Amino acid sequence: MARESAEALSAETSTKGLVEIFTGEGKGKTSAALGAIIRALGHGLRVYIVFFMKGDFPYGEQKILCQLPNCTVERFGFQEFVDPAHPKPEEKAEARKALDAARKAMLSQKYDVVILDEVNIAAAWKLIDVNDVIKLIKDKPEKVELILTGRYADPKIVKVADLVTEMVKIKHPYDKGILSRKGVEY
Amino acid sequence: MARESAEALSAETSTKGLVEIFTGEGKGKTSAALGAIIRALGHGLRVYIVFFMKGDFPYGEQKILCQLPNCTVERFGFQEFVDPAHPKPEEKAEARKALDAARKAMLSQKYDVVILDEVNIAAAWKLIDVNDVIKLIKDKPEKVELILTGRYADPKIVKVADLVTEMVKIKHPYDKGILSRKGVEY
Repeated sequence: MARESAEALSAETSTKGLVEIFTGEGKGKTSAALGAIIRALGHGLRVYIVFFMKGDFPYGEQKILCQLPNCTVERFGFQEFVDPAHPKPEEKAEARKALDAARKAMLSQKYDVVILDEVNIAAAWKLIDVNDVIKLIKDKPEKVELILTGRYADPKIVKVADLVTEMVKIKHPYDKGILSRKGVEY
Repeated sequence: MARESAEALSAETSTKGLVEIFTGEGKGKTSAALGAIIRALGHGLRVYIVFFMKGDFPYGEQKILCQLPNCTVERFGFQEFVDPAHPKPEEKAEARKALDAARKAMLSQKYDVVILDEVNIAAAWKLIDVNDVIKLIKDKPEKVELILTGRYADPKIVKVADLVTEMVKIKHPYDKGILSRKGVEY
């Protein structure tokens, strides 16, 4: 075992759920959230994840997640790209639905872990009001773990979060002109 | 859909597997690798993951992973902490076994994605020779995706990798004295 895992050995398990943020330009934000699902399910916890702005694109991870017990998946948004400078009313409506669905799940007492994938971008692009995300965080039941992903995390969100990790791109194949590959990036 | 996902829409799927590194002090390295498993399995790919230095500690993620089809899990190491200044011969032997198992899996043609969890630390602490990790990377069959996790990624490994993400700790609950929680951190 790595010495740095020492904290993980504590028998004292806090019952207070935290607010975690995965942001930054690097790869691994949504993947880290998906990995958190695996860990939570492995311990018998119940998980809810909502995907913002991912429409009906056949993401591999969603297929597998839907097969796992105790994991509820919802998705909103359209397959077309959002223009950050001119978000459409229907795109805002979809993002609003995603946020409302997350709030409902968070308050339902049915889930131990609630994940809002790409919510940071939705707020940065003003599809939703960042203050509504802050309100969601403030209204979090104590035991629920809340995970928010997406680049451009608003400083106001970072301020109220407990754990913030920035994924920094040190080297990326896009730099060499290699495109995303099915089953790996999406 | 987020504009930044544009690359992910490419119908051209590269068949060349890359070498990916998740390193840094922040949370999310192993989680990102676990999330990569979900994505790969969702597309019908076959995955192998070996855990270095994690002994027989009951990690939740391992339980769930073992239940998934097309996912092979191996683990090596002991439950006790490794002292980086004085690694024991048996700890080195376990890490060597893990590396050998990964190589065998990588060359077996049975897997599309091969993951070495915490291999970077094993190399940094000289449980294994970093040059043997480089050799593993150089011997990678073209189609295999290789993912290496753990802090302290050696510059030599970074140099030969295609995609390197550093997880940077912006804010962490340990800073506030909150210990790791079952189902979330381990």
